[in-house]
Amino acid sequence: MRRKGLASMAAQTVASTTDTTTAPAAPSVDLGPAVALSCRECGERTPLSPSFACASCFGPLEAAYELPTGDPEALRKAIEAGPESIWRYAPLLPVPADVADKPNLNPGFTRLVKADRLAAELGVTGELYVKDDSGNPTHSFKDRVVAIAVEAARAFGFTTLSCSSTGNLAGAVGAAAARAGLRSCVFIPHDLEQGKVVMAAVYGGDVVAIEGTYDDVNRFCSELIGDPIGEGWGFTNVNLRPYYAEGSKTLAYEICEQLGWRIPDQIVVPVASGSQLTKIDKGLQELIKVGLVEEKPYRIIAAQAEGCSPVSAAYKAGHDVVRPVKPDTIVKSLAIGNPADGPYVLDIARRTGGAVEDVTDEQVVEGIKLLARTEGIFAETAGGVTVGVAKKLLESGVLDPAATTVVINTGDGLKTLDAVAATSGPTATIRPSLDAFRAAGLATH
Amino acid sequence: MRRKGLASMAAQTVASTTDTTTAPAAPSVDLGPAVALSCRECGERTPLSPSFACASCFGPLEAAYELPTGDPEALRKAIEAGPESIWRYAPLLPVPADVADKPNLNPGFTRLVKADRLAAELGVTGELYVKDDSGNPTHSFKDRVVAIAVEAARAFGFTTLSCSSTGNLAGAVGAAAARAGLRSCVFIPHDLEQGKVVMAAVYGGDVVAIEGTYDDVNRFCSELIGDPIGEGWGFTNVNLRPYYAEGSKTLAYEICEQLGWRIPDQIVVPVASGSQLTKIDKGLQELIKVGLVEEKPYRIIAAQAEGCSPVSAAYKAGHDVVRPVKPDTIVKSLAIGNPADGPYVLDIARRTGGAVEDVTDEQVVEGIKLLARTEGIFAETAGGVTVGVAKKLLESGVLDPAATTVVINTGDGLKTLDAVAATSGPTATIRPSLDAFRAAGLATH
Repeated sequence: MRRKGLASMAAQTVASTTDTTTAPAAPSVDLGPAVALSCRECGERTPLSPSFACASCFGPLEAAYELPTGDPEALRKAIEAGPESIWRYAPLLPVPADVADKPNLNPGFTRLVKADRLAAELGVTGELYVKDDSGNPTHSFKDRVVAIAVEAARAFGFTTLSCSSTGNLAGAVGAAAARAGLRSCVFIPHDLEQGKVVMAAVYGGDVVAIEGTYDDVNRFCSELIGDPIGEGWGFTNVNLRPYYAEGSKTLAYEICEQLGWRIPDQIVVPVASGSQLTKIDKGLQELIKVGLVEEKPYRIIAAQAEGCSPVSAAYKAGHDVVRPVKPDTIVKSLAIGNPADGPYVLDIARRTGGAVEDVTDEQVVEGIKLLARTEGIFAETAGGVTVGVAKKLLESGVLDPAATTVVINTGDGLKTLDAVAATSGPTATIRPSLDAFRAAGLATH
Repeated sequence: MRRKGLASMAAQTVASTTDTTTAPAAPSVDLGPAVALSCRECGERTPLSPSFACASCFGPLEAAYELPTGDPEALRKAIEAGPESIWRYAPLLPVPADVADKPNLNPGFTRLVKADRLAAELGVTGELYVKDDSGNPTHSFKDRVVAIAVEAARAFGFTTLSCSSTGNLAGAVGAAAARAGLRSCVFIPHDLEQGKVVMAAVYGGDVVAIEGTYDDVNRFCSELIGDPIGEGWGFTNVNLRPYYAEGSKTLAYEICEQLGWRIPDQIVVPVASGSQLTKIDKGLQELIKVGLVEEKPYRIIAAQAEGCSPVSAAYKAGHDVVRPVKPDTIVKSLAIGNPADGPYVLDIARRTGGAVEDVTDEQVVEGIKLLARTEGIFAETAGGVTVGVAKKLLESGVLDPAATTVVINTGDGLKTLDAVAATSGPTATIRPSLDAFRAAGLATH
């Protein structure tokens, strides 16, 4: 199913826009250590270009690197002296070396919060951390991936930055394009919540509401890429995807650096398309390869919402393929029923001795409130998923309570207020008098 | 008016809770370089304690320091090697030296964004920067001041953290208390927008809705402090105010450090109570005093919304006192009609050759959208005020376009979506077809 969709999109691309979107990149394309695209299925390499599917087997393409081979200590020092953003890792990313000098949102280097109070509630006796990506410029991890897509767009001479989105990505693209001085035109379903529409539109780019579902929006974007109209358009999550997706590697880099250049024992990662999880694994492998961290075993745990848990279902059934589902969950940012990277997530969870687990919407809300109450972090629903899954797997003994564990929060509770609104109201409503306050039972004396 | 209110509150405090809230601090109170409270009117000193009004003249108290007197170069290096939060400036703040080791939200060290595209639109030929405090943990500058209040609460043995708030502060207090393991109980008007109530309540503390206006909430909190019920309660913006307010100094420290230890020529600061502006000035003076920056002239510009512009009105009329007004503006976070620090703001604007200016609600919205469109920063309404005032004063020639200018954005647009919702919608709504897209006039080919 997945492969067929990609193949059809690749065929369209080749058929109608060979001149602009699949031609080998000119030698002048400088994306730093990225030297080619390689197929994740057959391994065939192709020059850097705005392509996303292998010409031989239609497998997904990803950036391939010539990684630094020198003294790891020198690299570590250079990184530590770099900017407080993902650009400190420029030597490991598909971006030019001078990326930090260009106008962009400088995302990343978000807080890694040592969560002792959450640990106590969950019975964790080792170290527990929350990687809190709500601190990014538009308050989700999307700023990481979009920032890389902007550099690819510049390298390939695209003048319009685009995407299909249910909200977070549209805002991230709008903001990044505004700062970079690119035109933006994003596509959203027509029935999005007003808050998300505002977030997409306020940056001044074009926002096109499509009369249809998110799937309709996606199909329309594929059509657009295959049409001359799309010439000069970089779609972050389609023809720039091999670059865009690499941004998630920075989560792995930051977690290890913030732990003192050490790989944690267990990482709990939310799964929508599965791309973030696979790139975190790739990032860890790269850190080992270049010698920035010592090789050690680590477990990657994938977290889904029960109402959209195709990867979790496949994992539990022992399958290698992921059967698409129709999402029905409050966790909109993870509601991808046909996750492109699902099989890779299964591979990684099994290879690392991890797991794939899901939690109910009620457990998601409980997870959000638990994290807020113990650590003062207000996560979006995806953060409720990872906290909920961590809790569930600690209770079932799958996660080791004595290990060093990192739970990822990818977004901000301000964007998903509805999830907790019904259960987060005033403790009491009173007249402004001491007697009324005493009567409410809240006085401590 | 202002003085009388403080006097009456101070008298209440002395009368009923001498034992806990106005007694001189025990010698064991360690608030780092802060050694006393001093009256901003008469200069009289009193030991560190949870007091806020001078026992002699009822003037407001503030923290007084023994600042570092050693080699500035050593201090600079220590700061630069410190944590990426306000705690890097612990030697200049009323906090113990080991503050960074305690559980708190670690706010600050937010982005100073070089705003070249905004500069071009405004006709600025010098350097223009936006200090973007939406990157703080709960997305407003309140995290800075609350973090200091938490340390004072710990030092004085308070077990409940409290405040009166119209939203932002309640969320910041709830989050900080949760992380610190303190109880929180915040007071809000009963008719707040649901989003702000959720933000206050999600951290699990008590939220008390008061049937009345924000002024009623404030009066009730003063009563509470003067009653035995309030024993053990630290109100960030009342009995902890002399500490709390010092958190705003870190905006000045960060701006100078991020400019390479250099004071900018012009700083545009929003004014609600006026406290933030006075503390930025205090912070700059301290940096000069300890030798971290060279002394140079600087101009501080105060920015208000026309619908709540008592300080601007006094400035333009040449008055030294500020006549209270009834706020009527979309800029809720600056809607303090009787600003406690108004006279000090007037002093500083005049002393530094600055100005006090106001903009209409329409100009606020225009400012928000201008900043979003040029720099990808989505500010709350207070950010629209500072951008709008900068634009107005550049047009009128009051601000020097060739100078180095910093505009402060104190909060996040996600919290004030209503301000831009009416004018930030989809560019077009279409069926998912290329023909429909062409017909909408958005194709570039």
